[in-house]
Amino acid sequence: MSLTIAYDPGNIFAKIIAGDIPCARVYEDDRVISFMDAFPQSKGHTLVVPKVPVCNLFDIADDDLANLIVQTRRIARAVREALAPDGLRLIQFNGEAAGQTVFHLHMHILPIWTDQPLARHGGGMADMEVLKATAARIADKL
Amino acid sequence: MSLTIAYDPGNIFAKIIAGDIPCARVYEDDRVISFMDAFPQSKGHTLVVPKVPVCNLFDIADDDLANLIVQTRRIARAVREALAPDGLRLIQFNGEAAGQTVFHLHMHILPIWTDQPLARHGGGMADMEVLKATAARIADKL
Repeated sequence: MSLTIAYDPGNIFAKIIAGDIPCARVYEDDRVISFMDAFPQSKGHTLVVPKVPVCNLFDIADDDLANLIVQTRRIARAVREALAPDGLRLIQFNGEAAGQTVFHLHMHILPIWTDQPLARHGGGMADMEVLKATAARIADKL
Repeated sequence: MSLTIAYDPGNIFAKIIAGDIPCARVYEDDRVISFMDAFPQSKGHTLVVPKVPVCNLFDIADDDLANLIVQTRRIARAVREALAPDGLRLIQFNGEAAGQTVFHLHMHILPIWTDQPLARHGGGMADMEVLKATAARIADKL
């Protein structure tokens, strides 16, 4: 089944966790890292990634999953305070069929404004300096 | 801000928790209830609802949120085992602008098949007997 795959330690989020490639970082501790999605569906589209090497929701330990959602909510509150969206979605994709493009578990925090349509998932790449400025505004509310 | 609203104790999920209206139940304990979405976007579209009276992600206590995601993952595993989808999404809507239609926090478990397009969120109502049969198949894997 496509929901049961082997973890590839060379995936892009593993490289971000290792510090081998840059990101627009919002938050980091021993267990999670949060940064702006480089292919944002909206302004403020933020990812929260556990540092354990797991492909998807099915593979993570209960305690790491609980920590992930608590940290995700904390960062979602900061997104809300920093950007004042009309709404906000949490989304988590498992498997290519569901829209997963990086096979390291991650939560999407997607702020939504009524008058702004969402971009396609994995659409155009954003400017890193713009992402870093947004990340700084969110981090300031943590 | 529309993400800060008062909890309405007469909402439909509060009535389901109270046992005042029926649902196609998958699981229930003291802290959560899980049942089939009556307006499914796909076969097996399942909701997981904490019993605490909170509108959205921003209002729930850390411990209740951690329990919610652990239970959601446990039920998502049962959905995977029962229905063998190609992919699976977790989705959680906050605010009408984000697509929230019932203002009691809930997680969507959305199984996805490559060859079956998703129905619109909040589209057509499903037959209760069909939902109960699917619920029983999922519950059997818990």
